[in-house]
Amino acid sequence: MTWFGRDLVTARGLGRDDIEEILREADSFSSIAREKRSTDTLKGKVVATLFFEPSTRTRFSFQTAAMRLGARRIGFGDDSVTSTVKGETLSDTIKVIDACADCIVIRHPLEGAAQAAANVSEAPVINAGDGANQHPTQALLDLYTIRKEKGTIDGLKILMLGDLKYGRTVHSLAYALSQFDDVELLFHSPPALRMPEQITNELRGQIKMRELSSFDLSQADVVYATRIQKERFADPEEYRKYSYHIGTDELATMKTDAILMHPFPRVGEIAEEVDADPRAAYFRQEANGICVRMAVLNKILSRKG
Amino acid sequence: MTWFGRDLVTARGLGRDDIEEILREADSFSSIAREKRSTDTLKGKVVATLFFEPSTRTRFSFQTAAMRLGARRIGFGDDSVTSTVKGETLSDTIKVIDACADCIVIRHPLEGAAQAAANVSEAPVINAGDGANQHPTQALLDLYTIRKEKGTIDGLKILMLGDLKYGRTVHSLAYALSQFDDVELLFHSPPALRMPEQITNELRGQIKMRELSSFDLSQADVVYATRIQKERFADPEEYRKYSYHIGTDELATMKTDAILMHPFPRVGEIAEEVDADPRAAYFRQEANGICVRMAVLNKILSRKG
Amino acid sequence: MTWFGRDLVTARGLGRDDIEEILREADSFSSIAREKRSTDTLKGKVVATLFFEPSTRTRFSFQTAAMRLGARRIGFGDDSVTSTVKGETLSDTIKVIDACADCIVIRHPLEGAAQAAANVSEAPVINAGDGANQHPTQALLDLYTIRKEKGTIDGLKILMLGDLKYGRTVHSLAYALSQFDDVELLFHSPPALRMPEQITNELRGQIKMRELSSFDLSQADVVYATRIQKERFADPEEYRKYSYHIGTDELATMKTDAILMHPFPRVGEIAEEVDADPRAAYFRQEANGICVRMAVLNKILSRKG
Repeated sequence: MTWFGRDLVTARGLGRDDIEEILREADSFSSIAREKRSTDTLKGKVVATLFFEPSTRTRFSFQTAAMRLGARRIGFGDDSVTSTVKGETLSDTIKVIDACADCIVIRHPLEGAAQAAANVSEAPVINAGDGANQHPTQALLDLYTIRKEKGTIDGLKILMLGDLKYGRTVHSLAYALSQFDDVELLFHSPPALRMPEQITNELRGQIKMRELSSFDLSQADVVYATRIQKERFADPEEYRKYSYHIGTDELATMKTDAILMHPFPRVGEIAEEVDADPRAAYFRQEANGICVRMAVLNKILSRKG
Repeated sequence: MTWFGRDLVTARGLGRDDIEEILREADSFSSIAREKRSTDTLKGKVVATLFFEPSTRTRFSFQTAAMRLGARRIGFGDDSVTSTVKGETLSDTIKVIDACADCIVIRHPLEGAAQAAANVSEAPVINAGDGANQHPTQALLDLYTIRKEKGTIDGLKILMLGDLKYGRTVHSLAYALSQFDDVELLFHSPPALRMPEQITNELRGQIKMRELSSFDLSQADVVYATRIQKERFADPEEYRKYSYHIGTDELATMKTDAILMHPFPRVGEIAEEVDADPRAAYFRQEANGICVRMAVLNKILSRKG
Repeated sequence: MTWFGRDLVTARGLGRDDIEEILREADSFSSIAREKRSTDTLKGKVVATLFFEPSTRTRFSFQTAAMRLGARRIGFGDDSVTSTVKGETLSDTIKVIDACADCIVIRHPLEGAAQAAANVSEAPVINAGDGANQHPTQALLDLYTIRKEKGTIDGLKILMLGDLKYGRTVHSLAYALSQFDDVELLFHSPPALRMPEQITNELRGQIKMRELSSFDLSQADVVYATRIQKERFADPEEYRKYSYHIGTDELATMKTDAILMHPFPRVGEIAEEVDADPRAAYFRQEANGICVRMAVLNKILSRKG
């Protein structure tokens, strides 16, 4: 298998070799990203970033990755500026962009939109989040962060907190982690927002999984917190009951060498007082997005990778 | 006449020589556009794309054209981000941009806006659609497509369908086709959406024109379909009565060597099942937008053209 | 003091040397800006323009300045496309951008937002307007314009008209002018929209200031008009009473060698008939924004300045 010219729609089909190839490439770009330097590797290439949904981190890190590789960009951050408002289908919109760009990065509120785009596009399509489904480049940057912070991924206990049902980042990450050895996934979420059975059924036998009955951070090597959206609950009382908060007290229950991650945005799950603790890895995680997306773009767009 | 430094506000004043010059230039750029390569022809130039109305195709093909020529871009896809919301006049807005950019591409909901912009701007202004009035670069890419698909423009029968009253693309195309020899325009539209008399009066004697009384695709070498907007009809029943649909059955009535064009977006005028037929030229037409707009930008911005 | 790596949040702390350094640098860029040429001075640098509020002039002149220096850009013109809509804090948003960009230009509706951004960002932050507070690059381009038009800044009488309470441009300009010799500030505004006492108290002793009791343009070397927003008045009658208008008659009362400036947008304060008068300096002022912002970006981003 080769990354060149390939769509990246889901983390589901990624093998360990595929992942390791990206992590190595990301390493080779990390100093460029950190020192904010640029290369001409993708000079003349055009990367389209089509965001049918609001985004800060993913959109800007893709744009920055493209720029630091010397590529140019087209796209939008809001589909109200496009013919979508006149009733155009996604398929017709993608065909326009396909004629313009060498690669299409798409975020869309509907599950399956990225695959639908890939079906009509000759240019490779990268899923930057489709509804509650997948967000594969987030999984790659999460793996990169875990390896960098903990030295290894194999053998770790990884606790996923929050909205595991609609949280596309934890879906992609669970599939990707299943490719590593002896990883154990711990889940804790509101009853209504459990990891979908479709995913746990598929991963059973490939990776150890366990539901925690209480909010217990003490066993995990990696605490992966995600945002719970108030809108997921009909009753605000339910939201209050099931929302969680990691402050200094909760942090104190974590292993001293554990790390705390979050795909962001956060809206109260993690107190700002936690930011200064060395275990708070989420800003480093965020910054890793640039070199990992440089790696993904370069692997997909450069023949020699 | 020279293209260098010139405004392109309407297709009305374009002579055949002007048109042929653009079509030749477009040809010379077509492999760059198709192979998604870039040049440095317009390095250091800044192209402003000011879209006061939603657009997908026109905006992205102008942006891509500018990029593939090495130019840089500023602009917006939505005037809610500008001082227009504070009550600024178009004229004052254009003067800001004029100090920034080498060329201004403008789409605006009001007829005459592009001419108004050209009146105050020193930088050349390209009309990317002003209300129901004109869309000259669309006419140029339509001509380019017809020539490429049919080998010639002279002598063809071209059927225009849909909203001929408010459809700026058919207005620009009718003027441009009047410069060619022995072309016949056939019209078919809802009674309330006929080609404006002002245009047919002006073109009489310069080009053959004929109204078709029924929906008959069989005579045309080129079927040019356009979108009918529901909002044009007070009574939804009227819309249902006059909207049209080209599916496999209708396609079967077309000449075997005819082509079917559409400026897009489509919202039901042409079924997706038609897309695979070789006569369906609209995605090729759309893709031609890039090299034709490269030609227009380069002719207007490069002294040697 | 050095400009390299420095935040530019307010005009308050700027010394005359700081200002002169920018004005000289702007002079050196003025022909590049006027002739719309480009340099590679900031090649590989990324400038983020974060506009949480609508803007035309400031946003496009920063973008154009960045481009003419060879820098690349990321950003938004409207925060509805960002995670702000999901409830993300400004601080968390700035940290994302900090990992992407070499410099952050921010406009925000809240006073103090630029300073808040500077507090969390390692990359230097440039305030492009924070609520009714400050707009320091506007002050610099205003000074540049005054010097260029009048030959000097020292010794001039400068009349500020309009909304002096919420007008951030006059706040920044007043601080900056206090660094020059023998300047006199004249104020005329609706009683409810006077220059804040906090500012006049701070500047007393550093610069002469005088309130004009009537709308009298005859004493000033520079008339600096600003927009009065209807929304500032509960009673529309009050707005009508206190809004002002400069037409040919009012212009006739100005000194023959005075200049008329306005930070724009204008909404009726200055008639279009005035535009052709040589004393109408506002379009030249606007155009000066590009070389002055090139100077600011280059001083802040280039080690050798």
